[in-house]
Order: sequence, then structure tokens, then C-alpha cells
Amino acid sequence: MLNKVSSSITTLLDERRAGHSLPAGLYTRDDVFEADVEVFFMNHWIQVGVECDVPEPGDASVIDIGSTSLILLRDDDNQIRVMRNVCRHRGSRLLDAGSSVISKLVCPYHQWTYELSGELSYAPHMGKDFDKSCRSLKPVNFRSIGGLIYVCLSDDPPTDIKRLEEVMEKRLAPYDLRNTKVAHQVDVIEKGNWKLTMENNRECYHCSANHPELCVSFVDLDFGFDPDSLSPEDRNEAEEHFALYAERTRGWEEAGFPSATVEQVRHCETNFRTQRLIISGAGESQTEDATAASSKLLGTMARKDLGDLHLWGHNSWNHVMGDHAVTSTAVPLSADTTLVRTKWLVHKDAVEGVDYDLDKLTHVWVATTEQDSELVARSYAGIQDSAYEPGPYSKFSEGALDDFSSWYVERMRAHGY
Amino acid sequence: MLNKVSSSITTLLDERRAGHSLPAGLYTRDDVFEADVEVFFMNHWIQVGVECDVPEPGDASVIDIGSTSLILLRDDDNQIRVMRNVCRHRGSRLLDAGSSVISKLVCPYHQWTYELSGELSYAPHMGKDFDKSCRSLKPVNFRSIGGLIYVCLSDDPPTDIKRLEEVMEKRLAPYDLRNTKVAHQVDVIEKGNWKLTMENNRECYHCSANHPELCVSFVDLDFGFDPDSLSPEDRNEAEEHFALYAERTRGWEEAGFPSATVEQVRHCETNFRTQRLIISGAGESQTEDATAASSKLLGTMARKDLGDLHLWGHNSWNHVMGDHAVTSTAVPLSADTTLVRTKWLVHKDAVEGVDYDLDKLTHVWVATTEQDSELVARSYAGIQDSAYEPGPYSKFSEGALDDFSSWYVERMRAHGY
Amino acid sequence: MLNKVSSSITTLLDERRAGHSLPAGLYTRDDVFEADVEVFFMNHWIQVGVECDVPEPGDASVIDIGSTSLILLRDDDNQIRVMRNVCRHRGSRLLDAGSSVISKLVCPYHQWTYELSGELSYAPHMGKDFDKSCRSLKPVNFRSIGGLIYVCLSDDPPTDIKRLEEVMEKRLAPYDLRNTKVAHQVDVIEKGNWKLTMENNRECYHCSANHPELCVSFVDLDFGFDPDSLSPEDRNEAEEHFALYAERTRGWEEAGFPSATVEQVRHCETNFRTQRLIISGAGESQTEDATAASSKLLGTMARKDLGDLHLWGHNSWNHVMGDHAVTSTAVPLSADTTLVRTKWLVHKDAVEGVDYDLDKLTHVWVATTEQDSELVARSYAGIQDSAYEPGPYSKFSEGALDDFSSWYVERMRAHGY
Repeated sequence: MLNKVSSSITTLLDERRAGHSLPAGLYTRDDVFEADVEVFFMNHWIQVGVECDVPEPGDASVIDIGSTSLILLRDDDNQIRVMRNVCRHRGSRLLDAGSSVISKLVCPYHQWTYELSGELSYAPHMGKDFDKSCRSLKPVNFRSIGGLIYVCLSDDPPTDIKRLEEVMEKRLAPYDLRNTKVAHQVDVIEKGNWKLTMENNRECYHCSANHPELCVSFVDLDFGFDPDSLSPEDRNEAEEHFALYAERTRGWEEAGFPSATVEQVRHCETNFRTQRLIISGAGESQTEDATAASSKLLGTMARKDLGDLHLWGHNSWNHVMGDHAVTSTAVPLSADTTLVRTKWLVHKDAVEGVDYDLDKLTHVWVATTEQDSELVARSYAGIQDSAYEPGPYSKFSEGALDDFSSWYVERMRAHGY
Repeated sequence: MLNKVSSSITTLLDERRAGHSLPAGLYTRDDVFEADVEVFFMNHWIQVGVECDVPEPGDASVIDIGSTSLILLRDDDNQIRVMRNVCRHRGSRLLDAGSSVISKLVCPYHQWTYELSGELSYAPHMGKDFDKSCRSLKPVNFRSIGGLIYVCLSDDPPTDIKRLEEVMEKRLAPYDLRNTKVAHQVDVIEKGNWKLTMENNRECYHCSANHPELCVSFVDLDFGFDPDSLSPEDRNEAEEHFALYAERTRGWEEAGFPSATVEQVRHCETNFRTQRLIISGAGESQTEDATAASSKLLGTMARKDLGDLHLWGHNSWNHVMGDHAVTSTAVPLSADTTLVRTKWLVHKDAVEGVDYDLDKLTHVWVATTEQDSELVARSYAGIQDSAYEPGPYSKFSEGALDDFSSWYVERMRAHGY
Repeated sequence: MLNKVSSSITTLLDERRAGHSLPAGLYTRDDVFEADVEVFFMNHWIQVGVECDVPEPGDASVIDIGSTSLILLRDDDNQIRVMRNVCRHRGSRLLDAGSSVISKLVCPYHQWTYELSGELSYAPHMGKDFDKSCRSLKPVNFRSIGGLIYVCLSDDPPTDIKRLEEVMEKRLAPYDLRNTKVAHQVDVIEKGNWKLTMENNRECYHCSANHPELCVSFVDLDFGFDPDSLSPEDRNEAEEHFALYAERTRGWEEAGFPSATVEQVRHCETNFRTQRLIISGAGESQTEDATAASSKLLGTMARKDLGDLHLWGHNSWNHVMGDHAVTSTAVPLSADTTLVRTKWLVHKDAVEGVDYDLDKLTHVWVATTEQDSELVARSYAGIQDSAYEPGPYSKFSEGALDDFSSWYVERMRAHGY
């Protein structure tokens, strides 16, 4: 007789073995999906966009997190605001998906009208005694960290985003992402659980066989390797790479560009990791030939050899280079589908066809994103199979997955599961 | 930890505040959908079609109410019959969706054959001892009220349909809907809960901004307004309209056309409201220019100035005018989808292209139906969002929604929730 | 108040009346679907393919049973093997659906590499202490019975497949299905529960009205009839047929071709029935004119008049004739969809266009399969309707359905329901 659906989420969490992938139900069950959305997307800080999604006053952009819809806008005082996209009358959506330019927020259903501050200023048919002051659009807690927008949908957001802020504001400053523009955006719906999307992103064990375009500029050794498996030549190559890495890091730090690894990945609420990585070959950018894609460098950058400033969150990954940045966010749509939204940012004054070629700019990560989507789907298909049992992570190159899965279990427990 | 799914339907009903829209779960939850179908579509009278769906003996039309399929047919004695579309052998559907002309009902699977009365007359392979008499097709309780077909799938149908019958038979008589034809039919699947479809239909607060075509002939003031919000000119206009309305109603009543509002909307099983409304402008019909679309008037009508005989049920709305009628029924398909079927009826002898132009006939309600479908989807999207909380109905123009939501809660409770 | 979803599966099983179709919930409910997959597809022997799906060493074919994926392959020693299509690392699928030719099984994700025996031979990044020996691909119990592949996904497979093996190895031997090739394959997704697919297959009561192509070669009398319903001419015809059937059976048996009915359909774990049926008309094959479709006969067959060696299992049906065989398997995809995969087998050396014409070979069963799919959908639609109640099986021509439904209830109970 079947009993697999009767085990509680707590039991599944208890079953998780250190150093191993999660029990199947944590990836596949609908009740776990609901809990994940509640815990990780409603009660933690998530990265959802960039300031340059709304460059001018009156610009608004809709961000959907499952059934939750947010309005990111820039008000008339040039300030960013984030509010819920739900009319306070009978709940209608105010803005459609995508971008708009607005002077006020007018609900299309019954014309309730809100200022860009969220304040309700007009509510026809409601009578003179109607108190508009308690019917403002609901505001959302947010932070812009170096131009990257993080929100927390809880009224009691984790305070340890402080460390992310302290570390990243300084690292991101010279790139001035607030003054970039979105040169390109791609949405991919991966056929897998969001945690598989994140696990896939946190290792490069799969890179050499699956990402030929990325491997031109990426050094997969940086993400761990098995020292005993190296041939004498490979061992020499590895030693040379790590010597170079130490030298470069020292140089970057001395030049005022913090580069060392900082991570907060267990026993914390806000999960992140940052590190400045060497770019291979021509050493400038994640392009087909590792040279810069945009001749107009970001912010105050005067050099192209500052590598790849890498930042992971629990639903995002970012690569910031001298000439452009690539930022990706993952949002679960169901237990078995995840939206991955990738944006390519260049200097706000860079002109397509003059300063940069769009194909060159996007080639590597368009390909990599499609390849990863295939891998996540393949992985999810197998995890749904009764033959799946949690497998061992490589201690050399999948340590970050063990951190992530362990942090996942910790956070679920902290939320009562 | 999540507890939203654990609250009972009873708790959701208890949470409903008077004067406000319903708690989200009553619109979105699958268990509520199942209960709604059971209570409101299996145990109340619902409007499902018109006699002229089956104008001739042997005509049959299939009506699907979710997973329930009904056969509406006209037998050889010219009598309407309604029965379940399920063979008594192994359950096969007898007729496909749409219309057929039949002399008997023969199951395509094993040729069990039923008379148009529903009686089983032939069952091959079942042996000489097989008792066919207890294997008739299951009959369905129905009423034809002025040619509008209502069914109740329960064996114990509400008796208070009596009042609807008494009121409407008389009002509908001069239009003789039994002798009309279906000139056009449109099915729209709205992306929202059926109760939002009905709420949308029960107010005209949204009309002026959303229904330009309908507003030519419709007076939205009739559906309520905020007196304090009117400018002096608008106030004059309103006063003139209501003076005219009183005068017309008196005139219509004196001429033998009952016109006053009759409603049975709370503390009852069968929910309805009827009223004769003024048509604006040319005053004849709900068309682009408010003139009649069909030169052959309905029934015994000799005049085009009898306004719009309006009838609402809990799953239907009807507009009966001198030259044509528009009748719409709503059937829930899932918590988040609702089928709205709209039919345009003209005199049975009216000839397309001679007596009426199909585009003129259908233009207003085709447009209005599409616009309403957009609004329902927009509303449903917001109600699924965790930012939604029940909002206040306008006491001036959303009183009918408060009645509807209150009646909904009453009827759910009466059925044990 | 609704209580239909609260009844247990056990209650539904208790409600089943002998001689009648099953209660609706056993066909429609999701929890029953999950139980069915567990009981009948994970814990019983099921037919899933044929040896000639993988004719050469290194050939592999993926077989999906819902979320379970199997690899059927032929190893370098020409032996058939069946294993689970799930990498032992993080669960990725190894092979995609369809056929492949392989020398090893390499996981595309991280290049874990398995021998054709399933043994893990290479696992990069896992370190020198990693024990590969406990990470072989999981093997699956299987039997090839006369070239038909049966698997059981349980570790404790039913032992009474012995009788099927004893009976069928001998009957199938002269056809040598191991040395055939798949000339054609058709997948149909039927819109109905898998048990309706099987019930439809186990009676020919529906044949005369629905399968004109099949009825050229099939004698529906063989599947039962009501003697009292026959006209004198039909009675004569039936008597002649059964006299011929007795004579032929005697002749076949004497010539060394076992032909009598053998069935194991109640009070058993492995459900099957076999019988050699007369082919009508030209008497050779299930084609449009009942003549052989392939001039190269199967195996060691020297004659075309050996009728149709028929074999049913609980998820399969097979017709083996002198010139070709047709084999169909049913796999449930959800409560309301079932995959039916049909293969046409001819002698491995038969050449299309020379020895056989593909249209002639496939015409009858392509048509019959489509017709059955329509009937199953029609039947399932009605069973979802609240008007459905279990109906009586014909005692003359639906006895095999009563056996099947009774065995279904027995097996569910044996598994704790």
C-alpha cells in the first residue's frame, strides 16, 4: 500500500544525509513547493531586478514571483519604489506584465487611482465618508545594493542582508550598475525544481562537457577539482593557474578592488557568496574570444583586466566585468518549472552597433543558459523516478551544493518544518 | 509554517465581512470549486439553454455542465425533454457536443437504443431475462420559463423557482421566445472563478471606462451612482433620467407590460432580479446606434420602445428587447476558468441579410463579452496574490454584489458548509 | 455537503458489484491512479517491449512507465539487460526516449560512465576513496518469453509468471519472434483510464458496429453471443463456425501447434489468456482481405493457416499470425490518459516493398486502434459524469471484463487496499 505521500515535510528534511543531494520529495512534491515559496521567496531577501529596469521617473516594471506581482517604479523624485500590484478595491491587477510609463497608477477596472507613492487619491462611487488613507497600495521592503534590487515580502525581513550590502556596495561601486541599461533580456522556463536550477549553477563539474562557449573564459578549476585525478601536465597547469590567481588577487586588492572570497552560506538567513575570478585567454570578458564586448566600459572602469566579479544569492547569480554585466534570477513557477530571467547590462550611453555588438555580448550566456536548462530538465526527470536515491556530492567540486542543501534544510526547520 | 490550506471552507465563510468581496480562498481553492459545483450547479436551478436550441421534433442539443452532460431534445410529440447523456450499460456518452437530429438515441459503443422518451428499447447481448425497464436514461428536472430552459440536477429541486416563473412567464409572453431562432452563439472561456464572472455582471461601475459600445444604449446610472460626486450638470442629467424612467415605467405598466423591479436575492434558494430598463439614444435596442437590429420584431411585439427587459439569475443574464434577445449563461470549468455562452435570438422567421444584419445584431455584446472576459481575468489574477484582501463594495453601485456574496455564503451554509 | 472525495479506496472496492463495471472513483480518482501504478505496474509483471527492439549488441531502447524510465539494451555478449535510467550521482536521466547505439552509458551531466552491464566504471571528481562498486545502475527483473519482454519493478516479483512462460514459450517457438524486426510502431494516447483500455480490449461486443476493417478477419462470435437473439440463419452460421473451430483446433493440435484456450484470470497474480482463433475469409492474416501481408513467413512457419495466436496480459494484447505479429502495450500516464503502443513485427529479413507492403500490413490495426481510442474516450467521459452508475456486463460477451474487474479488486485487496 502506498505511503509515500503521507510522510511529512519534516520527515523528508530528517531523511536528508549530509554530503548528498536531497530526498526526491523535497524536489517534487507540491506541498514542498508551497512551503518553499513561503519560506524562501516570501520570507527571505530575493534578487528580482536592477535599477536600470526603470531608468526614468514614471517608468514602471512588473515583476511576477509566482502568483505575487510587484510594481517596481521610479517616482517623480527619482526614487525607486516597490509595491504590490493589487488594487485595494476588488483586487484587480493594476499593471500588466512588462514595462510602462505612467504618471499615476489607475486601476483599469473601476478607475481607483494611486499616486506613484502608492497613496490612493481617487476612488469613484465610494462616497464622501470613504477613508482613502487606509487603502494605499501595499509597499514592499526592498534594497538597491549597487543597483541590484532585492525585495523581501515579509514584514520582518532578515537583518543579515547587512553583510551582503557592506561587501557588495563597495565591490560594485566602480561598475556603477545604477547607470547601465538592459541591452538584452532572455526568459527561459526550465523544466525542473528551482533548487536544481540553483544546484546546477553552484558547480562547474558539468562545465567542460556541456558549456564549450563558457569554457573559453571560465576556469573550471576555480570551482574545485580532484587533485589525485590530474595528469602531471594538468597538475602543472593547475599550479600555474592558482599561482596566477594569487598574484592577480593581490594586485587587484592593492589597486583598491576587493577580490577575496566572502561567503555567508550556512547558519544565516541571507545566503550569498562573492569572489573575483580570473577570466581566461584574452582575459577581458565572458565572450566567445574573451575580449570585451563593449568598448564603453562600465562606470568609472579604466581597465578591462579586473576579471569577473561573481555574486551568488539563493535565487540569483551575477557576473560583473569591465565592459558588461550578466545578471540572472530564478523564480519557481511550480514544483517542476522555474523561470530564469537573464539580463545583459552595458553602460547606459553605450550604443548598439557602435559601442557593442549584441550577438557578441550575449552569445556565451544565451548558449550556457539553454544548456543548463537541458541539464536541469534531465536531472528533474530522473529525480521523479522511483529509482532515484540521493547521491553523493563530490567533496572537491560540489561542496557549494552541500552548503546550499544544508542551508535549505536549516531554513525550512527555522520556519517550523 | 504554512497553514492557509488547512482552514476549512466553513472558516472561509465565517471570515467574509458584510459589504466586502469574498476571502480569496472562496474564489481560488479547488475544494471550494468542488463545493460550488455541488451546491450551486447540482442543487439549485440553473439556466442552461433556450427552447429554440431544439426547434423541431428529433432535434437534440448537448449541454455540458463541467463533467455533467445533458441532452436537451424535442420529442415526437413536440415536447421538450432533458436527460443525462450517459448510457446505462457501461457509461458511454450517447451524443457528442453540439446539435444532432435523431429518431432514437443509439449508444455508439454497444448499440443500446433508447426512445426519445429515454426508455431503453433495445439492448443486444443482454439475454432474454434482462429487465430493460429499470435502465431508462436518467431524466432531469427542468422548466421552460417563457422559452428559457432551467434545470435542476437534484432530485429535490428548490420550490421557490415558482416566483421566477410567475413573474417572468407574464413578462416574457409578448416576446414569445419559444418561437425564436439562435442567430448567433459565442463561447468565451473566462480566466477566472465563476463568482467573479457574476460579480462583474452585477455592476455597471466599470461600464463607462470599459464598454464604449454598450454605453451607447445602456444608462449606467441605473446601476447606482454616488450623488455627492455629481457636478451640477451631471446632477441635472441624472434627475432628468430618473424622471423619464418613472414616466416610462408608468406608461409601460399601463400598456400591460409589467416593468417594475422584482428581486429575490437573499434568504432564498432561487436568486433572480428583473427590471425593465430604458434604452438610451434611439431607444430601441442594444446596438451601435441603439436602433433595432431586426426589422421583424419578436413575438407579438408591435413597438420597439419597450426598453430592455433584464433578467439575472445566479448563472445567467438576459436582455430581451423588441427586436432581439441576448441570453448568457455561465458554467464553471475549474476554480479558475468559466465558460460564458452567449446566444442572440431573433424571430424564427427573420432572415439574415433581409430582416437583420448579423454584424449589427451582435456587435455590442461580442465586444462587451470580450471586455468583461479581460476584466475577470485581471481581477482573478490579483485575487490569487497574497496581497489581496477583501475590499469594500461601493454602497451606491455594488449593492447587488453584496447581495450576491451574502446569498452565496447563506447557500453554502444551508448545504452544510 | 460533499463527501465523495472522503471515501477510502477500500470503500470503493467494497462497493463493486459482481457482474458490473467498477464504481466511478476506481476509474477517475487520482489516489486510485497512484495506487494502480504502484500495484499493477510496479508490483506485477508487465509486458513492455520485444527483443527485436534491440536487435544488435550496443542497441538500447528507452521504455517509460509513467515517471519510471527503463533502459532495455543488448550487451556485448548478445544478452538482453534491463536497468533503471537514473544516474547514481544526482539522478539525471542517462538516455533520452527512443533508440540509441552505445558502447558505454555515459551520463551527459557529469560523465559518470557505466558499462553495458550497469557497472560504474568511471566517476570523475569523486576521489580515490570513492567506492564505485555500490553505484551500479539498478537492474530490473525481466523475462523474455518467446521474444516478448516482461518486467517486474518489484524486488519480489510474482512467481506465477511460470505458467505464462511454460504455455507461451512453446506456442511462440515456431514464430521465432526473437528474429523479427519492428516494421512499424504507433503510439496513441487514449483519453481514458487504463482499465477502460483493457476492458475495451477484452470484448468484441463493440466490434461489429465499430471495427469494419477488423471484422473482415475477426469472428466476433468467438468472444461470445446471446443464443436467444440469433435468427435461424445466424444460428446456422454460428453452428457452422463452432464446428469449424473445433475441427481446426483438433487439426492444429495434431500438427503440433497447441491451440486450446489457457487462461489464468482470477485468484492469481499474473493475469493472461491465450487461444488460437480462426481467421475469417481468406484465413491468413489480419489484413483488409485476410490474406498474408508478408510473403516471408515468421520463424519456421511453412503454412499460413494457423490462425491468430492470441495472448492477453493485464496491460497487453498480442496477435501472432503466420506472416506477422501485432503487439500492443498499455501504460497509464494519469487517471485519465493511457499510452497504447502498437508494434508490427515481420521476419527480420523481410524487405519492405519486396516482401511486404507497409500499408497492407498496418491498415487493420491502425484503424482499429484509432476506433478503440475514440470508444475509450467516450466511455471515460461518461464515467466522470455523476449520472454514471456501474452497469451490467453481458453474461455472454463481457465475461472477460467481469474476470478482469474481479481480479483488479482482488489484487488491490492483496496489496492492502
